[in-house]
This record gives sequence, C-alpha cells and structure tokens, in this order.
Amino acid sequence: MSINVIEGGVTAAKGFKASCTAAGIKYQGRTDMAMVYSEAPCTSAGVYTSNVVKAAPVIWDKEVTKGNVPVRAIVVNAGVANACTGKQGLDYCEQTAEAVSKALNVDKKGVIIGSTGVIGRQLPIDRIVAGVDVLAKSLESGVEAGTKASKAIMTTDTVNKEVAVTFTVGGKTVTMGGMAKGSGMIHPNMCTMLAYVSTDCAISKELLQEALSEDVEETFNMISVDGDTSTNDTLVVLANGLAGNEIIDKKGADYDTFKEALHYINEYLAKHMAADGEGATTLLEVKVVGAGTKAQAKKIAKSVICSSLTKAAIYGRDSNWGRIICAMGYSGAGFDPDKVSIWYEAAGKKMLIVENGMDAGYSEEEATELLKNESVTVIADLHEGSECATAWGCDLTYDYVKINADYRS
Amino acid sequence: MSINVIEGGVTAAKGFKASCTAAGIKYQGRTDMAMVYSEAPCTSAGVYTSNVVKAAPVIWDKEVTKGNVPVRAIVVNAGVANACTGKQGLDYCEQTAEAVSKALNVDKKGVIIGSTGVIGRQLPIDRIVAGVDVLAKSLESGVEAGTKASKAIMTTDTVNKEVAVTFTVGGKTVTMGGMAKGSGMIHPNMCTMLAYVSTDCAISKELLQEALSEDVEETFNMISVDGDTSTNDTLVVLANGLAGNEIIDKKGADYDTFKEALHYINEYLAKHMAADGEGATTLLEVKVVGAGTKAQAKKIAKSVICSSLTKAAIYGRDSNWGRIICAMGYSGAGFDPDKVSIWYEAAGKKMLIVENGMDAGYSEEEATELLKNESVTVIADLHEGSECATAWGCDLTYDYVKINADYRS
Repeated sequence: MSINVIEGGVTAAKGFKASCTAAGIKYQGRTDMAMVYSEAPCTSAGVYTSNVVKAAPVIWDKEVTKGNVPVRAIVVNAGVANACTGKQGLDYCEQTAEAVSKALNVDKKGVIIGSTGVIGRQLPIDRIVAGVDVLAKSLESGVEAGTKASKAIMTTDTVNKEVAVTFTVGGKTVTMGGMAKGSGMIHPNMCTMLAYVSTDCAISKELLQEALSEDVEETFNMISVDGDTSTNDTLVVLANGLAGNEIIDKKGADYDTFKEALHYINEYLAKHMAADGEGATTLLEVKVVGAGTKAQAKKIAKSVICSSLTKAAIYGRDSNWGRIICAMGYSGAGFDPDKVSIWYEAAGKKMLIVENGMDAGYSEEEATELLKNESVTVIADLHEGSECATAWGCDLTYDYVKINADYRS
Repeated sequence: MSINVIEGGVTAAKGFKASCTAAGIKYQGRTDMAMVYSEAPCTSAGVYTSNVVKAAPVIWDKEVTKGNVPVRAIVVNAGVANACTGKQGLDYCEQTAEAVSKALNVDKKGVIIGSTGVIGRQLPIDRIVAGVDVLAKSLESGVEAGTKASKAIMTTDTVNKEVAVTFTVGGKTVTMGGMAKGSGMIHPNMCTMLAYVSTDCAISKELLQEALSEDVEETFNMISVDGDTSTNDTLVVLANGLAGNEIIDKKGADYDTFKEALHYINEYLAKHMAADGEGATTLLEVKVVGAGTKAQAKKIAKSVICSSLTKAAIYGRDSNWGRIICAMGYSGAGFDPDKVSIWYEAAGKKMLIVENGMDAGYSEEEATELLKNESVTVIADLHEGSECATAWGCDLTYDYVKINADYRS
C-alpha cells in the first residue's frame, strides 16, 4: 500500500481550517454547527442522495459542485435537516451562503452547505446566521479543530468519524482527510449521511468527480443501517492544490494512487458509520466471493446486510444462517443455492457454517462465541466465478427501536 | 357487495374436513400439524415464493398445482421449514405424501404439503409420518375443526387467521373459506406465509389460477412485516365443485363474483397477517391515491410500509411524517414532492398532515392521539392522476427484536 494513515481528519491537509459552535439549533449543551475553510480555492466534486425528495442543501450543493466557482468553505448544522421546506428552505440556504460570503470574503457560489436532523421543520435562520459569524471568527488549523468539527455535526451518532492519510504524487507528499456523520436513515444511494473529504492534492475537476463517483459505489453505497435512503445524503471532496504536486489531469500511476487514498478514506468513514448505526452493537461485514458478476455479488451482499431478520439474529448471537441464505435468495440476483458455502470470521477465527447450501455440521456454541465479537464477517462463496463484493451493516437492537420510536422529542 | 361474510374458515365450504395433532415437531404442549381433506377431488391453483432459495414443500407443491392430478388433501407442519435441506428434504416431502396417500387412499400427487419454522434443519420424518396417521383418523367437518387446524400451523403468530364467505353463482350458494399463518419473514412475493383457501365452487383450473395470480398482486404481495421474503411462501386454493353450480369456465358475471369473493378472503387474511406481524402493536395501512400509474402507486405504498424508520415512529406514536415522504422518495417511483398531501386516518377521524410537500400546520398532540389506534391509515395523494394502491404493514417494536434475536431457542 502506497498510503500512510496519519492522525487527523478534515484539517489534516495543508490550508484547511475548521471551527465549531453551539448555535442552539435544537440540542442544548453541545456544539451543533461546524465550518471548514480552505486558504486556497478548491476544485470540488460531490455525490448526493438519489431520493426524489431532496433537502434544500442538497439542491444547493449540487449547483456548487457542478459549477466552476472554486469552493472555499463548508458550513454544516445538526438538528434540522432543511428537507421538505419548500422555497423557504432554499432561501435559507442562500441566506446562509451569503452570511458565509460576507464573513469570509468569499464567493457565495463557492460555499457548501450541509444540514442533518428532523425533516419538515424550517431552520432557525437567525441562529444559523449568528452561528456563521462565530464560526468564521474562530477558524483554527490543526488536528483538534477538525475533531471538534466532526463532533459538532453528529446527531444520533455515538462517536465522531474522521480519518487522514498521506501519499506521494510526483515526489510531493500529499495529504487527504475526511469527516462524516451518520447513524440512522442510512442506506446511502448516496445517507442522513454527510461526509466531507479535503485534500491538498492538485487534481482536475473531471478526474476528481470521476474518482469520487466510482469509489462511492464500492464504499458508501455498500453500507446500510436501516434501509432508509435519506433526503440529505451528501459527500463532497475539496482539493486545494497546496501540496504543490503537478496537477493530476490524466489517468496513470498518480491518479491510481489518488484513488487508492480516496478509497481508504471513504471505506474507513463508511465502515465506521455502519459500526455506529443507531443502537448497533456489532459491525456486520458481508463478503460475497466466487460470483459470476460484480453486480450479482453486490446485490447479494447488500441484501444480507439489509435483512432485519439477519440483523436481529446477529444481535442475539444466534447463528441462524437460514436467514442469511434466505436474504441472498430474495436479493434479485440469481445463483445456485445448492452450491453455496458460508463462513463466519471474527478475531482471526474462521468457521464453516454452510456447505452445498446445507448445514455444515458446525458447533452452535462455538458460533455463538464467535458472533460475540464487535466485528463479524460473513463470507458467502457462490462457487460460480471470481467476482466479489463487500457490504457493511450492523445488528438490529432494542436501542434502534428506542432511538427511532421517539427521535423527535 | 354480492358476498356475505360467515363464520368459519378452511372447512366452511361443502365437503372439506380438517384435523390437527401435537406431533412434537419442535414445540411442547401445543398442536403443530394440521390436515385438510376434501371429500371430492379438487381443482387447484397455487402461487409461491419468488425467493431463489425454495423450501422442499414449495418445490413439491408447484408440481402438484401445475399437474392434472386432482388434489384431495393438505398436510402442514409448524416448527421446521424444510428449507435448505437438499435431496433429503425432497425425499421427506415424498415420504409425507406417501403416508397421506396410504392413510386416506388418495393419489400422492394430489397431496399439498406445507412446512414453516426454522430453516436448515431436517424434518423429524418419523414423527411427521406418525402425525399423518393421527390426522387422517381424526378428520372432522364443521367450523371448530377448521379453527383448530388454523391454530396448529401458527409459529410466532399470536392469533389464528381464518375467514369465510358465501356468494351466489347461477342460483347456487357457493362457499369459500381460508386460513393463513405468518408473522415474521413476511414480505410475500409470494411469505413464511402459508395460506390455504377452499371452496365448493366449480371452476376451471385455468380461471382458478388466473384469478389467484391476479388477486395476489393486490393482497398478499402488498403486505410486509420485515422485508424478508421467505423461502416457504405458499398460497393454494382448492375448489371441489360440491356447490353444484354450473362450472365457471369463461369470464363473465359469475367469474367476477368468484374473484370478488377470493379477493375478500385474500385481503382479510393478508391484512390480519400484517396486523399480527411479529411484535406489532399497530396495523399500518398505506393508501397512495392520485397516482399517474398503478405501478407507481404500488411501489410508493410498499416503500412506506417497509421503512424501518416509519415503522419505529408509528410504534412511538410520533407523527414523524418526514420519514413517510422520505420513504416515498426512495421508492424508485418518480413523483413531484412539492405536490404531495398526506393524511392520517383512524377510528373515523382524518387529519391533514402534509400539504404541498410541507407541514400542513397540524396539532402534534392530536396526531399522537390518533396514532394510538390499533389500526392507522396513511393516505398519500400525489395529485397526478387517478390511480391508487394500498399496502399493509405494522410498527417496529422492541418485541420484534426480542422475538428475532432468539427465535431458535
């Protein structure tokens, strides 16, 4: 691997600063707004929810990352999603961007806006605008500022999610870091997932978008907490070029290294989002191997991580493999059930559970022990070809129901 | 309506008898096998799971209802699903049918077999065969026998499901009744749903299958408890002709009346299955109206009843309509979110919640009160056309997780 994992997140790359504040959007006694600022203009790329119902900030950001105005800032609030808010919601996006524009002296068309929280309520725009002023005045460099920002955007998340790496492009050390939030309404096709990645790499807009669009298919689009695709899912990458590398504007070794780094960041954030799924106690990784086609492997892997019955069995540490093969079977992808093998893998131990579509004669006690790990991998071999895919989810617990039966109060 | 609802179930129609026994398949202290027998040979039709992984009895029954041997008996066990059991599982189906054939002096190719319970275990065939003998000797006519049979096939069901109607065909009174089980792994495309309908109507095999295949799209295929499509879903209709009506062998008024009766039976059983979903406290009915096409209305209605977040909110009596419109939005069917109206309806009261895709300014307290009903209808108007569809589901509760975290023990 040509990339090195380092400490930090969205402020790891050169020229990126961050800040946070307690604007009182919805929560008491915690920060709920964050800002990221780049000292140099950024090339941007974005991927967004496929939901027909799109939050106002998604509509706003799509225009920003599609356009040619370099991005200089990101501002995010937790508590209210600004979705199903009509023209008023869009006006509030514009007012927020205008406040950022004034406070930082940047073009308002270069401001990324993110919102997460309850659908259908209007933003308390006065508090948002006041928050922007505080954020603009308290921007700081360094790891700690990034960490604080990643905490300010959490909703039902129990831990903040950030990661950073360095790699080399044309002799220059390049840094890339990111932060993400997301715990419920997570089934990205592009979740109430917000993720922001920043890098000091110089790369063309076309290649940045292509790398992002491709990688998201293998990372964020392969996780699910509850099968609900949010109205707000957003993943934006900013590249400010301050690493001083010769710009990556064609495919080749440098582009491949960049993609590898982006993949590491995206996979790390996506996996940690799944592991921190609302109420989750176990990260469930499902690898489908020996598939005839990639599409088949992906469909089957996603079907298993989305199965409520499989997720509840994992919570109960119950090796109820019938639910796994059942979910494979209704995935919509064809395969021969009589050829399927299934293993469980955790903490370096691997157990054969199913062979030729039937019970392999394993020990229930040993399986239950293995399923007690915080991270469990299910490997399903179709014995059909050489394609594979991995998806990530979590168990279904009492706490998921508790959190979501009364989220708004 | 030209049909009359009467007391009874699978033994309501002329010539149908039933029995049950405690064969000790898995449960202690309860009945777990049932038999239905027709004194006259039956025309049959069936619809089955679309899961690639099909239980052995599904494979067996498909041959039976496709074939030309008249059906005389149904035998069902609860506790073990006989799915993922390979050739052994199919052999056990044949042995069961042979036991029925011997005990009742009927053709084994005219025996319908149903199994429901844990996937991946082999049937205790000796107990099944012994059970068949007891069942054959204890067949009885009358409402009570049908009710007992409907109780014997339950797994995590909390109530038995049966219904019967009469209607008139060519001056003759015809009776139709049915029983069903199903509570978890319910997302029929065709669920661990087993349903059996019996009628004394005379009708051709072609029209019986056509009526069934069409109606299931509007009834059983429009319910979901957990989104998991079982390996065992089976719905079989038997028609023995003992009502003495002139056979229905072409479309017309008689066929329409028959379809109306079948629809009543199917919708009743499907709705009661949804209401008895594992852990459920509320029946959630979702009606999409004003749609441009039927397919669009069905996709949207199903997406809402399958949304874990919507289901958890209903359990919490939380009018979190953002989750409803979000689920509509990721359904895969297009519509204009800015035109959508949403109402709640229960116990004769109707409340406007969303207008033009935004909060209609309703009272949260009144909405919470309304959501406390045992049966709640969500009506979503797309204001696009005149097509509509209805789907049925239930809330997501602690008990769903409890039941499924430790189903096998």
